[in-house]
Amino acid sequence: MARNGYFANLLSTVFDQRRIGRVHDDTRSIIEQSRDLIAATGETAILRTAASVLSTYGKLTTEEKNRFFRFLVDELDIDAAQVAEAALRYGSEPTSERLSALFKATEPSRQTLFRNLNHADGATAQLVALRQDLLAEGRNNADYAKIDLDLVHLFTSWFNRGFLVLRPIDWYTPAEILEKIIAYEAVHQINDWDDLRRRLKPDDRRCYAYFHPRMPDDPLIFVEIALSRGIPESIQSVLSEDREPIAAEAMDTAVFYSISNCQPGLYGISFGEFLIKHVVADLSDELPQLKEFVTLSPIPGLRQWVETADGIDPELIAALSDTGIEENGEVLRSLAAHYLADVKRGDGLPRDPVARFHLSNGAEIHNLLASADLSDNGVRQSFGAMVNYRYDVQKLEENSEAFATENAISVSRPVQALRRGATSHLGWEGAAA
Amino acid sequence: MARNGYFANLLSTVFDQRRIGRVHDDTRSIIEQSRDLIAATGETAILRTAASVLSTYGKLTTEEKNRFFRFLVDELDIDAAQVAEAALRYGSEPTSERLSALFKATEPSRQTLFRNLNHADGATAQLVALRQDLLAEGRNNADYAKIDLDLVHLFTSWFNRGFLVLRPIDWYTPAEILEKIIAYEAVHQINDWDDLRRRLKPDDRRCYAYFHPRMPDDPLIFVEIALSRGIPESIQSVLSEDREPIAAEAMDTAVFYSISNCQPGLYGISFGEFLIKHVVADLSDELPQLKEFVTLSPIPGLRQWVETADGIDPELIAALSDTGIEENGEVLRSLAAHYLADVKRGDGLPRDPVARFHLSNGAEIHNLLASADLSDNGVRQSFGAMVNYRYDVQKLEENSEAFATENAISVSRPVQALRRGATSHLGWEGAAA
Amino acid sequence: MARNGYFANLLSTVFDQRRIGRVHDDTRSIIEQSRDLIAATGETAILRTAASVLSTYGKLTTEEKNRFFRFLVDELDIDAAQVAEAALRYGSEPTSERLSALFKATEPSRQTLFRNLNHADGATAQLVALRQDLLAEGRNNADYAKIDLDLVHLFTSWFNRGFLVLRPIDWYTPAEILEKIIAYEAVHQINDWDDLRRRLKPDDRRCYAYFHPRMPDDPLIFVEIALSRGIPESIQSVLSEDREPIAAEAMDTAVFYSISNCQPGLYGISFGEFLIKHVVADLSDELPQLKEFVTLSPIPGLRQWVETADGIDPELIAALSDTGIEENGEVLRSLAAHYLADVKRGDGLPRDPVARFHLSNGAEIHNLLASADLSDNGVRQSFGAMVNYRYDVQKLEENSEAFATENAISVSRPVQALRRGATSHLGWEGAAA
Amino acid sequence: MARNGYFANLLSTVFDQRRIGRVHDDTRSIIEQSRDLIAATGETAILRTAASVLSTYGKLTTEEKNRFFRFLVDELDIDAAQVAEAALRYGSEPTSERLSALFKATEPSRQTLFRNLNHADGATAQLVALRQDLLAEGRNNADYAKIDLDLVHLFTSWFNRGFLVLRPIDWYTPAEILEKIIAYEAVHQINDWDDLRRRLKPDDRRCYAYFHPRMPDDPLIFVEIALSRGIPESIQSVLSEDREPIAAEAMDTAVFYSISNCQPGLYGISFGEFLIKHVVADLSDELPQLKEFVTLSPIPGLRQWVETADGIDPELIAALSDTGIEENGEVLRSLAAHYLADVKRGDGLPRDPVARFHLSNGAEIHNLLASADLSDNGVRQSFGAMVNYRYDVQKLEENSEAFATENAISVSRPVQALRRGATSHLGWEGAAA
Repeated sequence: MARNGYFANLLSTVFDQRRIGRVHDDTRSIIEQSRDLIAATGETAILRTAASVLSTYGKLTTEEKNRFFRFLVDELDIDAAQVAEAALRYGSEPTSERLSALFKATEPSRQTLFRNLNHADGATAQLVALRQDLLAEGRNNADYAKIDLDLVHLFTSWFNRGFLVLRPIDWYTPAEILEKIIAYEAVHQINDWDDLRRRLKPDDRRCYAYFHPRMPDDPLIFVEIALSRGIPESIQSVLSEDREPIAAEAMDTAVFYSISNCQPGLYGISFGEFLIKHVVADLSDELPQLKEFVTLSPIPGLRQWVETADGIDPELIAALSDTGIEENGEVLRSLAAHYLADVKRGDGLPRDPVARFHLSNGAEIHNLLASADLSDNGVRQSFGAMVNYRYDVQKLEENSEAFATENAISVSRPVQALRRGATSHLGWEGAAA
Repeated sequence: MARNGYFANLLSTVFDQRRIGRVHDDTRSIIEQSRDLIAATGETAILRTAASVLSTYGKLTTEEKNRFFRFLVDELDIDAAQVAEAALRYGSEPTSERLSALFKATEPSRQTLFRNLNHADGATAQLVALRQDLLAEGRNNADYAKIDLDLVHLFTSWFNRGFLVLRPIDWYTPAEILEKIIAYEAVHQINDWDDLRRRLKPDDRRCYAYFHPRMPDDPLIFVEIALSRGIPESIQSVLSEDREPIAAEAMDTAVFYSISNCQPGLYGISFGEFLIKHVVADLSDELPQLKEFVTLSPIPGLRQWVETADGIDPELIAALSDTGIEENGEVLRSLAAHYLADVKRGDGLPRDPVARFHLSNGAEIHNLLASADLSDNGVRQSFGAMVNYRYDVQKLEENSEAFATENAISVSRPVQALRRGATSHLGWEGAAA
Repeated sequence: MARNGYFANLLSTVFDQRRIGRVHDDTRSIIEQSRDLIAATGETAILRTAASVLSTYGKLTTEEKNRFFRFLVDELDIDAAQVAEAALRYGSEPTSERLSALFKATEPSRQTLFRNLNHADGATAQLVALRQDLLAEGRNNADYAKIDLDLVHLFTSWFNRGFLVLRPIDWYTPAEILEKIIAYEAVHQINDWDDLRRRLKPDDRRCYAYFHPRMPDDPLIFVEIALSRGIPESIQSVLSEDREPIAAEAMDTAVFYSISNCQPGLYGISFGEFLIKHVVADLSDELPQLKEFVTLSPIPGLRQWVETADGIDPELIAALSDTGIEENGEVLRSLAAHYLADVKRGDGLPRDPVARFHLSNGAEIHNLLASADLSDNGVRQSFGAMVNYRYDVQKLEENSEAFATENAISVSRPVQALRRGATSHLGWEGAAA
Repeated sequence: MARNGYFANLLSTVFDQRRIGRVHDDTRSIIEQSRDLIAATGETAILRTAASVLSTYGKLTTEEKNRFFRFLVDELDIDAAQVAEAALRYGSEPTSERLSALFKATEPSRQTLFRNLNHADGATAQLVALRQDLLAEGRNNADYAKIDLDLVHLFTSWFNRGFLVLRPIDWYTPAEILEKIIAYEAVHQINDWDDLRRRLKPDDRRCYAYFHPRMPDDPLIFVEIALSRGIPESIQSVLSEDREPIAAEAMDTAVFYSISNCQPGLYGISFGEFLIKHVVADLSDELPQLKEFVTLSPIPGLRQWVETADGIDPELIAALSDTGIEENGEVLRSLAAHYLADVKRGDGLPRDPVARFHLSNGAEIHNLLASADLSDNGVRQSFGAMVNYRYDVQKLEENSEAFATENAISVSRPVQALRRGATSHLGWEGAAA
């Protein structure tokens, strides 16, 4: 239908927002300018002042940024007494006017500032960068977390699922974007443009990213996928330089072998769950022959846990560390199954962060693979072991619910067996971890 | 640059969001479903439940809707005592945790409900429609205004200026959209497709609309423009069936002769200011020969004011009402100048709503025109008079600021003269109104 | 894949060809200008002169056009003696140089003229219009056919299948194009925009057109399609104002109920065969549930043949002409089957032009319908009878070949029976026609 | 206007031509298949056979290709006697039927073959590749030039200026295209993606290519441009890795520093003239501040001429060859001016091929630069000298005409002076060359 074409065109202008006001150099301090921006009425004044504040922010030193953040914390906070009073007034007579007054009192003028800043062209990306600074400096300034409450509140609206744009990344994608894919890949490094081409161009490879209309140059998150017959045994075989692409008819499995978040300033604003489900839905449509959707995922905390868990035979650890990865594959798989399914944090959730992500999405622990990532990094974090999480569209919601409410974990039969097998390698405490 | 093309394409998928979950008929009441949706975790559950709530809402009778709104007011409100306590706790020790707790306590679960509803495909348009119902029913239910506080809060984020998409509406626009332009035109009715063609196709006519990415089928607001040599004397000449288009070289003026809001459910979420300024910027770029940007606007309250103002000679009113419009053109212009610039509401702002809009944008009252809208409607509301507001990019910000802070109104010299001339037709009280 | 998006964008500029030279008024005669254009070297000169010739042509009276065509016939023809000599020279020593000289001698300078004219922006559409004039005037000027040989030669290259662009026409198509669909519909008139909407908007209706990149505003040919369960019994039921669209799951048949050529100037340059096959392929892909692709076609010559054929009972004719269409449905179907399959022209091809078209495409005569087009036109040309031609992708090539080489016609079993039944209504001669 | 967007979309399908027939392996010889294709009627048969011939051609060895070409020359040629007869018949009675018969007799069935081949998807690119083979093998087979006459005839229609699509190549261009730009750059080699980025991404760099709708993956020709203040003194400064881009306000000159033809199979089908003029027009529109459009061109034949011309002092040659390029800059410039403007081929045109190209386009020899290309290649072909040709839109047509009709060359005053200065370094014969 022509419909999509029309809308494609319709939307192109979202990126072409003409600067209605121009940025004039404002030599006053960012604090003075910010006060003006909070007080501004009229779109023209807001646009002009917002652009000027952002331009000034871009030139601040770290020290000056901290002074600005301090200003945000100390001088743009709410007045707790006033909030309490507004709440009591509303309690005594719950009119909409009093509710409105309460809402107003509870909204820090920081939020007005950020909201007004976001009117400027390109502001969203700059505010994401500002939050990256804030999170970094926040390590030494606990009360910056107050500023972050406002940013997270706003970002949650602005990066609403409904605005996320799923795009295939392929060999027809602009170099401007591809460059960033190379830079952002966080799991299995992309060495150069040739490596990138091997991951994007063959017909049995896919990559998808989420974009946001106001940050069109910059992916938010992306996933790399291998289409294969059956589940590959290792990341090495997936990334091999001299493999032959397989024909569309032969494909039955989509393997998500890498997911990378691109924007540190969007930490905690989660897109991964949507992305995987969105891509599963798209691929199912395009290639009905695909029967299985699995990940090929790292187990980042496995080695550290093995090396520090009680009751694991030090000789086994030495063997795994040394040359014995292959001989001890089954043992490693058992330990990994146990680690992922049974080793928990204080809050009852799995200790492994990647496991937490996929299990909360409703995936199942499908299989463990030894010798599956023999890169330095793979050996360092998991003795080379990897795991397949399986996305079964029929079960995602139920699994996700069970995980959310009872910490229940979905595990395939073979992994169940491996998990039982792990007990022989664990002392009593380890088994109960 | 290929850039825009790429992004056009990038964005097309925003409209193609595949239904990740399907809507299953949920026969439970909308209230039960809503409670589920507020509690839902996991994107799949949220999507499914949101779709189901919206589908159920769509089938409610007015009475059932009122029961649902009542539920939103009564059962999903905040707990004022809890807010007060949280505020005091924060006051006593202002940690970010306590601030977070306060924010949480102040956010009604209505907001969670609306936010989660908005995950569903097509939800934004449905929530806009829901607000239209709410505003209608709210006339008899003052406390529905509390629900509206939440909707306005969310809509302000979702319909953020940065997401608005400006599109030319022309004879290449899909019929699906053009049909809506015909339906939504609120100022000077479009009679049929031929009338529409006359407003869109000639080279000296323009129309622009704002769209929102999540409501791509539906314009939010649009403006119709005539490009002319000088300012036309009446709307009749603008809309004349047999006029000849003028050549691009001859144009020096852009006349905004109609602005229509399309979505009653977005009442109070203002786009008009951006739209006009955005279009002025675009047209200036495309046609540097344009020197003047003026409106040809109605004066909706003029006649009512004339007929009820103290001190105006009843014979004059009779003459205006009767056949005497042309003979009394100068008097009418004087009265209109006075009405627009000097007749105020209790809050000190102009009584005329269209005047308030343009003056708060920073426009100037540029000229008054008698016999400029001789349609039934034009005669009924203003004895056929119209007004030009002038948008001078250099002065918008200053005027807008002066209007916002001091209710100061910018008036051209000739209108200044007309305004002075009005005193002779007004008794003492009228003159001071 | 992003690929299509990229190319979409890539191609947009084909329509945006900047005028490198400007059209200056050239007051010389079109003949003088044409001589210049034939002699021109250098792109700038060609562009300028071509634009000027076309502009001049656009202002010619019919008489002046005839003078121009006469010039093309008489003064821009080849020199037959020179060709003969070049041929003999090549025969005596077949070098490439001599072949080149022969080719050169055989190409009338008319062709150079037309080729150079086509450099100008918008020239293709203007040359198509010129050919429309030529065909009209050619009725009284047999030797204009020589000019047409050159135009057909060039048009065949320029309107090569590879350049044809298939586009869905739907309710998202620009009004500019829709207006032309209304104007060009040649089979079942479109009354107004509401009628058009009924044919384009419902989910069980489709329309496709071919466009050419250099005439993007103007469709070349289009087809209207009803998706249905089974084959509808009449055009009335297809075009009914108050019918209910059927669900996608229920569809099993695509009915091509109208095909209209739009450009008289492209007479004889055939697109219909590609169009139908292209659309069948597209629909099969989009809706695999479609099992049958049939036309609902007029039988333009049926009535005339019935009324003039030997051996048909005059009372039968009277009955058909009068009110007896329904009672005599079976007889009419028999006569129509005979007419389509057995009544031939001198060259052995079917007398009915629509039959010739579909049969040469490889379609089968699938069924005859009485009372299927009760419009004035339908009764006038075929006593209201219509025919279904069936496109079976598996058999098209074989049927088409058999038709081309042996005039063999593919006929369904039921039509075969009808055809046999016709003999009882025909005298000996008629049966043998 | 939405118009362009609509058409962009409209055109996207030109690339998405669904295979109406499938390629089945045809094990017969290419010659048998070709005979079938020439005889084929019916689009389905043509499409299927064409695809099969092209697929078979793709697997031929060089020897088999030569056998195929031989078949084309020997068995698909015209019958000269028949042509002569048809010409005489037309001469004796010039009816359109006889003209048609003559045209038919003069068209080798090779042309029918190529025309039918071009129906298949992707055929155009394959025929361009076939011509590349043909030109290569034609070096040893003079009569292959007959085949080429047919290909050139068809290519001239198919690659008609009206179908060429001008596209900016920038950092938003798909990697698939950029890879080819790297491969095809013929003048100043692109070393890697970083080098490419330096040529495409900065705001003072541009690149444009022509594409053809049926070969969308493959540029036909492209030009690289530096926007600068004044004319740069050398290619080194243009391509420098660490230069700073200049601001748009500072630009006054566009320098075309590299033009590369991409398709050897399109040899002799000239696009360069259109490309440069099209780009000049586009840049003038986008950046009205540009006042000068010049090339920075190589002088490929300069050194060879200097080293072999009569009358040039061998010591001067030695000095130029050695280290003396800088000291002898003025002498070199004089010799170059003389070489370009005064040294001619037998046909009276300049001996230098790049000069022929730009002068026939109507450009002027604007300036000579010594030490302007100190790469190995630059020194080897011209002792490092380069030349600026200047494109002055006002004079192109006149200059081009003068060059075409009188071999007249347009030369700036300073080059005029240099040219005069050359005489002192040349013996009598050299000066008269």
